[in-house]
Amino acid sequence: MTVNARYAALFEPVRIGPVTAKNRFYQVPHCNGMGHLRPRAEAGMRGMKAAGGWGVVSTQETEIHPSSDLTPYAEGRIWDARDIPALRVMTGAVHEHGALAAVQLAHNGFHASNILTRTPALAPSDMALDFAVPAQARAMDKADIRAFRRWHRDAALRAREAGFDIVYVYAGHRMTLPQHFLLPALNARGDEYGGSLENRLRLTRELLEETHEAVGGDCAVAFRFAVDEMAGPDGMQAAEEGRAVVEMLAEMPDLWDVNVSDWSNDSQTTRFQPEDGYQLAYTDFVKGLTTKPVVGVGRLSSPDQMAALVAKGRLDLIGAARPSIADPFLPAKIAADRIEAIRECIGCNICVAADNLGGPIRCTQNPTMGEEWRRGWHPEEIAPKAAAAAALVVGAGPAGLECALQLARRGYDVTLADAAPEPGGRVARESALKGLGAWRRVADNRLYDLRQRGNVEMYLNSPLDAAAVLELGIANVFLATGARWRRDGVGRTCRAPLTGGGGVAILTPDDIMEGRLPGAGPVVIYDDDQAYMGGVIADLLATLRDDITLVTPAPVVSPWCAHTLEQGRIQTALLEAGVRIEANARLAALGEGRVDLACVYTGARRQVDCASVVLVTERARETALYEALRDEGGLSVLEVIGDAQMPGLIADAVYSGHRAARYFQADPGAAEAALYRREIPSLPEEGR
Amino acid sequence: MTVNARYAALFEPVRIGPVTAKNRFYQVPHCNGMGHLRPRAEAGMRGMKAAGGWGVVSTQETEIHPSSDLTPYAEGRIWDARDIPALRVMTGAVHEHGALAAVQLAHNGFHASNILTRTPALAPSDMALDFAVPAQARAMDKADIRAFRRWHRDAALRAREAGFDIVYVYAGHRMTLPQHFLLPALNARGDEYGGSLENRLRLTRELLEETHEAVGGDCAVAFRFAVDEMAGPDGMQAAEEGRAVVEMLAEMPDLWDVNVSDWSNDSQTTRFQPEDGYQLAYTDFVKGLTTKPVVGVGRLSSPDQMAALVAKGRLDLIGAARPSIADPFLPAKIAADRIEAIRECIGCNICVAADNLGGPIRCTQNPTMGEEWRRGWHPEEIAPKAAAAAALVVGAGPAGLECALQLARRGYDVTLADAAPEPGGRVARESALKGLGAWRRVADNRLYDLRQRGNVEMYLNSPLDAAAVLELGIANVFLATGARWRRDGVGRTCRAPLTGGGGVAILTPDDIMEGRLPGAGPVVIYDDDQAYMGGVIADLLATLRDDITLVTPAPVVSPWCAHTLEQGRIQTALLEAGVRIEANARLAALGEGRVDLACVYTGARRQVDCASVVLVTERARETALYEALRDEGGLSVLEVIGDAQMPGLIADAVYSGHRAARYFQADPGAAEAALYRREIPSLPEEGR
Repeated sequence: MTVNARYAALFEPVRIGPVTAKNRFYQVPHCNGMGHLRPRAEAGMRGMKAAGGWGVVSTQETEIHPSSDLTPYAEGRIWDARDIPALRVMTGAVHEHGALAAVQLAHNGFHASNILTRTPALAPSDMALDFAVPAQARAMDKADIRAFRRWHRDAALRAREAGFDIVYVYAGHRMTLPQHFLLPALNARGDEYGGSLENRLRLTRELLEETHEAVGGDCAVAFRFAVDEMAGPDGMQAAEEGRAVVEMLAEMPDLWDVNVSDWSNDSQTTRFQPEDGYQLAYTDFVKGLTTKPVVGVGRLSSPDQMAALVAKGRLDLIGAARPSIADPFLPAKIAADRIEAIRECIGCNICVAADNLGGPIRCTQNPTMGEEWRRGWHPEEIAPKAAAAAALVVGAGPAGLECALQLARRGYDVTLADAAPEPGGRVARESALKGLGAWRRVADNRLYDLRQRGNVEMYLNSPLDAAAVLELGIANVFLATGARWRRDGVGRTCRAPLTGGGGVAILTPDDIMEGRLPGAGPVVIYDDDQAYMGGVIADLLATLRDDITLVTPAPVVSPWCAHTLEQGRIQTALLEAGVRIEANARLAALGEGRVDLACVYTGARRQVDCASVVLVTERARETALYEALRDEGGLSVLEVIGDAQMPGLIADAVYSGHRAARYFQADPGAAEAALYRREIPSLPEEGR
Repeated sequence: MTVNARYAALFEPVRIGPVTAKNRFYQVPHCNGMGHLRPRAEAGMRGMKAAGGWGVVSTQETEIHPSSDLTPYAEGRIWDARDIPALRVMTGAVHEHGALAAVQLAHNGFHASNILTRTPALAPSDMALDFAVPAQARAMDKADIRAFRRWHRDAALRAREAGFDIVYVYAGHRMTLPQHFLLPALNARGDEYGGSLENRLRLTRELLEETHEAVGGDCAVAFRFAVDEMAGPDGMQAAEEGRAVVEMLAEMPDLWDVNVSDWSNDSQTTRFQPEDGYQLAYTDFVKGLTTKPVVGVGRLSSPDQMAALVAKGRLDLIGAARPSIADPFLPAKIAADRIEAIRECIGCNICVAADNLGGPIRCTQNPTMGEEWRRGWHPEEIAPKAAAAAALVVGAGPAGLECALQLARRGYDVTLADAAPEPGGRVARESALKGLGAWRRVADNRLYDLRQRGNVEMYLNSPLDAAAVLELGIANVFLATGARWRRDGVGRTCRAPLTGGGGVAILTPDDIMEGRLPGAGPVVIYDDDQAYMGGVIADLLATLRDDITLVTPAPVVSPWCAHTLEQGRIQTALLEAGVRIEANARLAALGEGRVDLACVYTGARRQVDCASVVLVTERARETALYEALRDEGGLSVLEVIGDAQMPGLIADAVYSGHRAARYFQADPGAAEAALYRREIPSLPEEGR
């Protein structure tokens, strides 16, 4: 097959030091919550990307020493020779498909809590750890610096032994020692490792030299460098020291991997940064200062943008973390000129959240992400139908669309019905809210695919009751009937319905999404959901009016969104928009023209005047159709999926729909008997 | 050896169903952050308790099914047969010393986030998960209940196969399904599993019956039951339904293991509950309602109290979690009439914090806790000296005392010097603060032991400079010189020193501990440490005056203390004492008679009038003596330990001192080469 000429340049090989990438698609290092705890899952996931055509596939940050212990987060680990076998599984999986394997060696300095190893943390200067734990890192003395350089060199040697082709020196995300030394805010040293930029850069220079010397004959030495902290003059700036660093080290690494810092800036969500390629304005000066290849990122998922970046000499390699998660086969689809088949990243950072919660990676768009090894799921392949059968999917939200799509791909005759005039369910509704437009892609991608298929019929404006379902005569029924936000105040903080409140209008997020906005008078948004919805509604209403109070039993707005790296941005935006925030308060009762709040600590009451309350609490599953059909009997399969089964994230709904389609007509016992493959500590007689 | 008659009853065997405990010392199930991730560490720790004389040693809560997945917390796991080998290591280690092994089977219902397994969570009724994640558990239907009962029965069978002698049904800590069904606040069912107490108890009754039926011939069936939620009429009460449950099930379990709920009530710290045995008032009615043996808890570490409890028929078995952590050899010491050698629990909940942080257990009093397998440390044994040598320990705080003690136990000649008139360092100082009196035991225990020994000389009022140290002619020097709180405002939120402020008096926690209290006028306590100290000082000052404002960049007071289960109590106490709390604010500058605060989100400034500011930020290591000696040279060993090496918790200081003493005269290469034993996922060809 010939690649479409406009994308041909993306498939040119690129020489990187002693190795050559087969094309310009470069999966930069990204966390995935697997790492040393789940090495075969890690290998399965990275190997799948190699199968999908990425020329380079990287590990996540890989701890080089017990003084950089990120427990309970499951990142990579290369403390000593005992870690090599697990890493070899990963490099083997990557090499199997002709890709290069890269390892991001990391020492996290004061960004490591060492909760497992109990080793004192290290930093350029004495400082509290970068976690809310009562411990401080100590300023490294010369012996510490020598030891650290030796650890890094030894880790590079082990990396080579594990089969890696590219070895990183990593100074980014405000997370690693080389960057900590670089930043004046963190480096108060008076010796030759502090003060001038030349001095602050000394450690990085030594690491680059020593890594080259150790493994440079076989492995490329990459330098990942955050050129800007997006804090203006309060941090490193691309136009100032960021540029100077690139000038000073220009030809030293075999590869420049450049981005912005910290993680919340590097991995911005579409809610706060809708523009793809948003980092290029910061990083594209680098190409002009070095002859070495440059890889950059910024949620690059448009093939035309990629081709233009290469053509204009702004990047040599197209870096991707999130776009490679949403679609591991992105390069293969471009090669096959199947651009429309690409599952575009929606920029929701559910991938990041999983890692931050200490769990394995997941993806809203790609429900197979993280299940490559464990369940043997392939993002592009699914078992064909076992026997001819027809299936009815009720509800065209995220679960129903995914279930219908995968059943159709398996070859079943699929009928998809939704009561609404438009498909998409909660995806259509939520993506109309402020900042969430990109989430629409979850529905668009699936609808596009479904509409190409001859074995799917979609009926809109089609509410179905049990009799109507049975009349269709389809024996296999999947119910993706969703959930509705509760209107009675019951939620995680209080399980008794609200009382009182004749004079206060009650609304829910469903009302807002359906266009029923609060009337005149002050509005209270009560967020006991504590994820994104309360903050999104406050943000939306604040554009329309200035009398908004957000009440939450949590200490901050949208606390869960700390995991998606958005919490700070959310609370800042609301405060700047004039939203009043009443934290640590539960809604105790509705009054006449007011609500009564109770302090979650003392129970002390206070009142807030308001005309309307938007209750963002729990959701009630829509199970009436399920119950009616269950009582009727007579169906071969009757399965509830998505929010009707378990109200959760859109990612959970997609996953649920996918799972149901995968296991349709599978032996039900088999699925439960060996739930999935697991990674369990070895029990040798002799401890290793 | 004959047991002292007053304690003889504690060593009587107790029949528990089909098995017999050799004595009345019962280590109840407690979390330890090892579990399925670190099974050999778990076995090493539990086995050490068996070696120390506990008649029964239990696992922590052990997940029976993937729908009860507590990732990233490392608890026990018995999902299927693949988990049996690891559990067998634990039962083997316990049986080796003649103790019974107990397993606490657990299904955590809506208290499981299932972040690893992605399985929908289960509950009596639909409800948000008991974590700030956007997911809900679904009401179990009859098929779910049947499945759950089957999982529990299967887990019991696997437990027997793994060698356990006692199998639990667990309804406690507001953490498990049987209790969720019992509590009206969580059970809104209309069927035979909801409504009346008889109905809400049905599931528990079925589990007890089915566990008996499955394994009752070989294993005792224990019922762990929280009789009271300590919420008055808003929760279950011992005098009401708690009592009724015991009456209804009186003879059904082979053993009653009773406590209070939730975890923060069961595991109270001495800061908020100084009284040992504080749960007995809730639980001691149980003995009167059953002929089966009863075990109860409540930080029981006094042998006299234990003996009285048995003599008075209030308990049959002395339950312990924390006292068994502080001293695994507590029973053996009572047996040997070495009461004075018992290391008493100080009730600080550092053990709990480690588990909550996803790391392995540790203990302030017992630095070997968690290191039994990994480093081979024994709480009562330590290698004798390799060769005769003398050691000087400078500083009699927690690190210095522990280092001196362990060196003395190894047989070295130890000189211990402190500049202060009293030994104890920060332990002496902090334990004088409100609520922390029990922490004094860290020093008392060690001082008592040191004073019995002939090879230790302690010098107080003895500040040493480098010349004085060298003059002593001792070649091995350990510096436990501690740290002082900074006076310049530098901390995790701001690394530049504070400016301005002629008119505001600056104090630090050291000032407060040394008796220098703020003068007249409003006081601001600035807590950028975010652990316990800021809250403790606010609590202390609030007893003396009413013009206190606590400012913190964190969203709540003492956020780290959520891990010790104290955060809610701390903030409640401060609010009730009238302390004003300014959260999400950093101290931006000192003014004349005021401080300027900046919102951590928007930077918006506000001012607070004050006459004094107590800065609780970072600590500066006291390293002047180290630097002087390092420059002098000539010593065989010069090692900095404790807060002078890494300011942290008292537990960290004790650990540091212990570690230094263990490795004194050890081959330095050997210690680093194989840092310690590790638990690494197995890599079989075939995934298990």
